[in-house]
Amino acid sequence: MKKTIIACAVQQPCNRGRETNLAYSISQIAAAAKQNADLVVLPELHLDHYFCQSEDTACFDLAQPVPGPTCEVLAQVAADNKVMIVSTIFERRAPGLYHNTAVVFDKDGSIAGTFRKMHIPDDPGFYEKFYFTPGDLGFRPIETSIGKLGVLICWDQWYPEAARLMALAGAEVLIYPTAIGWDPSDAAEEQQRQRDAWVTVQRGHAVANGLPVISCNRIGFEPAPDQAQGIQFWGNSFIAGPQGEILTSADDKQDLLLFAELDVQRSEDVRRIWPFLRDRRIEVYQDLLRRYID
Amino acid sequence: MKKTIIACAVQQPCNRGRETNLAYSISQIAAAAKQNADLVVLPELHLDHYFCQSEDTACFDLAQPVPGPTCEVLAQVAADNKVMIVSTIFERRAPGLYHNTAVVFDKDGSIAGTFRKMHIPDDPGFYEKFYFTPGDLGFRPIETSIGKLGVLICWDQWYPEAARLMALAGAEVLIYPTAIGWDPSDAAEEQQRQRDAWVTVQRGHAVANGLPVISCNRIGFEPAPDQAQGIQFWGNSFIAGPQGEILTSADDKQDLLLFAELDVQRSEDVRRIWPFLRDRRIEVYQDLLRRYID
Repeated sequence: MKKTIIACAVQQPCNRGRETNLAYSISQIAAAAKQNADLVVLPELHLDHYFCQSEDTACFDLAQPVPGPTCEVLAQVAADNKVMIVSTIFERRAPGLYHNTAVVFDKDGSIAGTFRKMHIPDDPGFYEKFYFTPGDLGFRPIETSIGKLGVLICWDQWYPEAARLMALAGAEVLIYPTAIGWDPSDAAEEQQRQRDAWVTVQRGHAVANGLPVISCNRIGFEPAPDQAQGIQFWGNSFIAGPQGEILTSADDKQDLLLFAELDVQRSEDVRRIWPFLRDRRIEVYQDLLRRYID
Repeated sequence: MKKTIIACAVQQPCNRGRETNLAYSISQIAAAAKQNADLVVLPELHLDHYFCQSEDTACFDLAQPVPGPTCEVLAQVAADNKVMIVSTIFERRAPGLYHNTAVVFDKDGSIAGTFRKMHIPDDPGFYEKFYFTPGDLGFRPIETSIGKLGVLICWDQWYPEAARLMALAGAEVLIYPTAIGWDPSDAAEEQQRQRDAWVTVQRGHAVANGLPVISCNRIGFEPAPDQAQGIQFWGNSFIAGPQGEILTSADDKQDLLLFAELDVQRSEDVRRIWPFLRDRRIEVYQDLLRRYID
């Protein structure tokens, strides 16, 4: 990794239609680059409203090839601004075969690599198993001009396995584009527990792996197409260091750019005092490959 | 698991000699039982000062068989108070073969099961690899009259693998007896990062597995036998619920009893809204069994 990188998470609403959403993302990328960002992370599926609130075959029309039209635009934006971009695109891989795919554009506009969301959620209001085929690219960090990026997507963030596999494969930072929010009918205490759990588990990945974490969420209310309550996307994007310490964080309302300087040497220093990778009991971890031990 | 259990963590100093330490542990167990605790957790190796600050063969004299003298005493205490006890004992298994072993006493005074610390640390002031043979009992929850206890010890707490394996094997609560503290020569900011990381990674295990966590640490300063700075054990024992929410927590100074009511139904409710176990990609986790992917 470049010795220090300036990372930027773009917390933005995605409920204003594709054209506006993309234009806004591009303006924010340019603004971040002007403030010397090396790396800009956008929220999961930032092009569109969160269409997974219902199961509707017409929504597959939102998908596009990777590389494809949006990749072409963002490649140009990356090259124009000499900045690395992590975007997430609803990928049409074949008729009837779609993925939730992160694309990393290097500073020269080339595609450094892609990651297809591995863990797919499905619960009321988040019907992702209908839309997204589980990823088949594995947990491979993406090699870029500034280092190896461990890009994962949203539901992946709840899985210590995903973070660990990225770390074992040499990731120098964990990156989570996300679209997560509250059911407005939940009590305030439950909403707070959910948000805190979401922050905590990701900070835990930072700690367990001695790696910084960038988590970028959308904000804003998006109504549901049926009688459901819709989703209040909770923002709270943050960047944490390799001890899980919060370097910068947002609230649940503001669209903004979050900046933090990440220091690769600091990760190694932390791993020297807490050498967790040294002491893993790999000879007795086999049951991690089982669904349940019964 | 019993539908609700009242758990108690005994945060105590362990720097007053074995006789006083044990007597104090026993008095705290009795006090907890009087306040209706079902389960009392003591700090790691609560019988003795933290002898791992140096490598000294004479310290092996502190070890004892399991079952053995202290087990006999604690079995009687459990039966007398009709309370379950989690104690950690420096186990002499054979001449030259020692373990750091948790023993769970059921309410009737029987030994419900044991767990030998699996991940062994070694860093300046914590020379545990000299004393403790890595455990060979695996990650098996201990079946008791109140449920399946996922007992792990200290350094194990940094490993998501350990928590996950306990959860997959049916643990209904994760329990971490601990002896962790600060190097007094570290800056206050570093000390705070370390403590926060320690809390965060364990709360992360609660979140990732939908299980409550009981973490019980010692307090107090213990000088080092050599020229080193000694260790200020940082307390901060806590009990968290299955979303990682803090139910109760201590500071770094007070010896006290921490109580929380754990509700097995709540764990299942949480797992129903966040069904992480459902979506694990076990077919692509093989590399978790590797030291590093290179």
